[in-house]
Amino acid sequence: MPSYKAPVRDTLFVLNEVLRCAQYQRLPAFAEATPDLLQAVLTEGAKFAEEVVQPINLSGDELGCTRHADGRVTTPPGFKEAYRQFVEGGWGALAADPAYGGQGLPHIVSTAFEEYMIAANMAFTMYPGLTLGAIAAITAVGSEQQKQRYLPNLISGHWTGTMNLTEPHCGTDLGLLRTKAELQADGTCRITGTKIFISAGEHDLSHNIIHLVLAKMSDSPDTVKGISLFVVPKFLVNDDGSLGARNAVTCGAIEEKMGIHGNATCVMNYDGATGYLIGEKEKGMRAMFIMMNAARLGVGLQGLAISEVAYQNAVIYARERLQGRALTGPKNAAGKADPIIVHPDVRRMLMNARAFNEGGRALALWGALMVDLAHAAATPEERQTADDLVGLLTPVIKGYFTDQGYVNATNAQQCFGGHGYVREWGMEQFVRDARIAMIYEGTNGVQALDLVGRKLAANGGRALRLFLSQVGALIAETALDRQLAPLAEGLKRALDDVQGATQWLMRNALMKPDNAGAGSIAYLYLMGLLALGYMWLQMAKVATAALAASSDEPAFYDHKLTTARYFFSHVIAETAVHRARVEAGAENLMALAAEAF
Amino acid sequence: MPSYKAPVRDTLFVLNEVLRCAQYQRLPAFAEATPDLLQAVLTEGAKFAEEVVQPINLSGDELGCTRHADGRVTTPPGFKEAYRQFVEGGWGALAADPAYGGQGLPHIVSTAFEEYMIAANMAFTMYPGLTLGAIAAITAVGSEQQKQRYLPNLISGHWTGTMNLTEPHCGTDLGLLRTKAELQADGTCRITGTKIFISAGEHDLSHNIIHLVLAKMSDSPDTVKGISLFVVPKFLVNDDGSLGARNAVTCGAIEEKMGIHGNATCVMNYDGATGYLIGEKEKGMRAMFIMMNAARLGVGLQGLAISEVAYQNAVIYARERLQGRALTGPKNAAGKADPIIVHPDVRRMLMNARAFNEGGRALALWGALMVDLAHAAATPEERQTADDLVGLLTPVIKGYFTDQGYVNATNAQQCFGGHGYVREWGMEQFVRDARIAMIYEGTNGVQALDLVGRKLAANGGRALRLFLSQVGALIAETALDRQLAPLAEGLKRALDDVQGATQWLMRNALMKPDNAGAGSIAYLYLMGLLALGYMWLQMAKVATAALAASSDEPAFYDHKLTTARYFFSHVIAETAVHRARVEAGAENLMALAAEAF
Repeated sequence: MPSYKAPVRDTLFVLNEVLRCAQYQRLPAFAEATPDLLQAVLTEGAKFAEEVVQPINLSGDELGCTRHADGRVTTPPGFKEAYRQFVEGGWGALAADPAYGGQGLPHIVSTAFEEYMIAANMAFTMYPGLTLGAIAAITAVGSEQQKQRYLPNLISGHWTGTMNLTEPHCGTDLGLLRTKAELQADGTCRITGTKIFISAGEHDLSHNIIHLVLAKMSDSPDTVKGISLFVVPKFLVNDDGSLGARNAVTCGAIEEKMGIHGNATCVMNYDGATGYLIGEKEKGMRAMFIMMNAARLGVGLQGLAISEVAYQNAVIYARERLQGRALTGPKNAAGKADPIIVHPDVRRMLMNARAFNEGGRALALWGALMVDLAHAAATPEERQTADDLVGLLTPVIKGYFTDQGYVNATNAQQCFGGHGYVREWGMEQFVRDARIAMIYEGTNGVQALDLVGRKLAANGGRALRLFLSQVGALIAETALDRQLAPLAEGLKRALDDVQGATQWLMRNALMKPDNAGAGSIAYLYLMGLLALGYMWLQMAKVATAALAASSDEPAFYDHKLTTARYFFSHVIAETAVHRARVEAGAENLMALAAEAF
Repeated sequence: MPSYKAPVRDTLFVLNEVLRCAQYQRLPAFAEATPDLLQAVLTEGAKFAEEVVQPINLSGDELGCTRHADGRVTTPPGFKEAYRQFVEGGWGALAADPAYGGQGLPHIVSTAFEEYMIAANMAFTMYPGLTLGAIAAITAVGSEQQKQRYLPNLISGHWTGTMNLTEPHCGTDLGLLRTKAELQADGTCRITGTKIFISAGEHDLSHNIIHLVLAKMSDSPDTVKGISLFVVPKFLVNDDGSLGARNAVTCGAIEEKMGIHGNATCVMNYDGATGYLIGEKEKGMRAMFIMMNAARLGVGLQGLAISEVAYQNAVIYARERLQGRALTGPKNAAGKADPIIVHPDVRRMLMNARAFNEGGRALALWGALMVDLAHAAATPEERQTADDLVGLLTPVIKGYFTDQGYVNATNAQQCFGGHGYVREWGMEQFVRDARIAMIYEGTNGVQALDLVGRKLAANGGRALRLFLSQVGALIAETALDRQLAPLAEGLKRALDDVQGATQWLMRNALMKPDNAGAGSIAYLYLMGLLALGYMWLQMAKVATAALAASSDEPAFYDHKLTTARYFFSHVIAETAVHRARVEAGAENLMALAAEAF
């Protein structure tokens, strides 16, 4: 059975030493986030993930969710009890608004904890994860009365939330959606339609489920501009906060799917259900994007978390499994064979995962910090800067992290040979679970188009210029250091590739937008590698300084530097081919007529 | 439900126009393989795969195999009837020796048919597929009496075969195996031990199962040099060919695994089973490699076949699914949205798969032709040349094709968005099925080491020199053609990268073998891309000539050229990063101590 140990030391390294969270303590949002509190929360959070949530991951996959004839859904054994403890521990409230019962810690703290939870049990963590999206949407566009009515129970976890976007004939292109909302005399709406792929749509964990539903009002245009957002509670909520009648929303089926079996992916039938408009009429897409942007960073985290837990298990196996001899002569001469970690190709798979995990963790937490600063920084300029950066990098974190998570889960499985293909080892579950993250909340192709088609050009390219200048400044600074200079050179080449690809797009994609689409994934990879390199060079800088200052943890910093060197010698070299693919353009790619395939 | 249409026209293009099989008709082995016969066999074979074998693929995955308390194993519904038809049609006998009831067609024909069978139903096709390995081993090392006893029924398919190598504690490192063979007074052996991951180890399709089992005789050294090969029939075979007593070999369990659920992957218990030494004592590894080499090409074919069928289904979906508008303006103005095939990133995934499928088909068939010529060519020199080439490229075809098969199956699934993650569409099955091919018959890491550590250096590098000079000659020839020159340039860059990486290994890996291991997968990818490019340039040359000669199928050749251009503008560019990774060496990759992970 697979195991998991939350990388608390590494998280603290990023929070305290790389991002230096303490520098923000003058901001009210960060006032309580002292190093001691961070350590305490993460240590407890790690324990909860490791001891309560992780042990029911494999069985949750095996047993899955069950829909009963009456539409009720039962989660796998142990989920209900674990969720009870999750609520009791207040784990869903970490970064929520104290005005509604939250603990008011910065988002960066809850993000760090969420990584552990996903790694321990992705399917389980999606239940509270979807709730976070609902909280974000209600917070952003709900009326005060709606906030009072829904937020406290969502934040405590007594209720959970969902996002209802997709319909059988539309996912990406929501303009096509058919779910209708008819205004009633009392100001409520009757919601009718079918939504599919609704994660956590129905289950037995919480007292109520608050569905956030995209629909078109009868008098709205039948386009993307006619979409409004509605709150549709499973049980109506009385004015005194008590639960009222069962609403006309039911789970019609749960999907049989490749993975995340512990999470109920539901077909939801709305049969004239009572719904409440939230936010402005016909501004549903804006509210949806608020949910989506938070969710996309969360999905990126899934890529990272699965990569980490798969890597950990591969390391354990590679240290224990005896097979063959090292190319350089026996390393375990007393045994009949050497552990397979001596084989360079096994190392390669482990080092690739490690370099991604540690770099990705830094980038994910940096992204979370930008979310915090976008709301909490002292000046409007700082808030704008943070908002620009997180906007630019959200599709990169979602797309690059989930693709890498899948690759690394696959490679970790590969380290197990045939045993990796067998259920009991749990490695194939990681691959199946990781796979969905590349698809939902906008496929990675949609992320790439968001990056190239929207984020690059927004505000005259301000966000990209800002990010590239930050990267450039770090290169300039570290290029003077004897130890860091070779790493800075590697980052410089990646920066050149990004700049070259960007210029090519500016010259060639404006008149021929297919050139942007054709190179979009390659460009997303370029940005992912550059951003990871930016983190690695910062981490290497911190590690070098710590070693120079005779840290009492020399091994930790030494390993950090070693992995940084590997990242710059082996991983980031890939930018050259991505740039070449951007610059190859759309011509040959689009030349074949659709009928010719 | 997914569909499949065997690409007969494309196969015939490779056989008749690219490889020009007719030129070998003076060889006895090819005498009957006229273009008419090829077309007839493949057309019938396509029909069998499409109509009999494909319809039970999805249900076979869903229902899987069942082991009963008495050790019997039942295959999924429909498998028995389909196998009966397979035997009746003589499909397993295509390329087998007429002396034992085979049809004596060249291997290249059965390979073409096998691709269709795997694409239609990989799990089903493994049953006769394993039989081919048993036939190869018995043919190569069996006594005439053994051949008479086993081959006719294996070739007809009335019996099936298995390969028993792996044990719980050893897969790659067979020197560690513990299965024992005790010589009896009558010259037979008693085989005792446990074998795992035995595909088709027990089932209800055939009257008998002939297990080929690696074991150590009591007086043999307990190393890889002490391994012998044994035939262990499920039912002993009487001298008159009738079936005798049930042998003491039973299926102890079937594995629950990620995919290929229709194939029974068995734990086989040998409890003093009667076995017969086949080939020389303690030369079991040699016999095993005969099985393995045939099997590795077959596994490579699995990568290709799954990529093809997944691609076909993605194309159908991408033409039908309406979502969003083309970046260049509506392409389906009358509809509410355009088919997603208009989106460049969807195209990219389809074109990548298409370029691999068509190039890979040519390379797989070229490999099969080399297998034929290694046995059947007129002169010893020609036989040696063919044997060198297929030896060099076997690990490349196994490793590169199966990695690409998985990537392309994943991308085809991606085209379906959320629907790709749901079982009923069948796309996630392709991913799960494709995954095993990267692992079994030697993981792809083992293939890479075979290539770099053994095949490159064999006979002073003769095979590589031969291959590179063939590639170089084609480049020189096509560089003079106006249409082909840009493609030849692309291949030239790939050739330079292979040569550069090879020279780097020669300079740096002899004294430091970890440098060979560290770059082995990258080198395998380099060779895979070069070999595919070699095929694409040949195909482009044929297509150009056909168009110049006013072929009556201009569209076919035009699409071929378009895909060739895409391969050279977008795909093969990757060689640069693989070369860089070879040349990055082992230093940073191996720097971390095993305990530090």
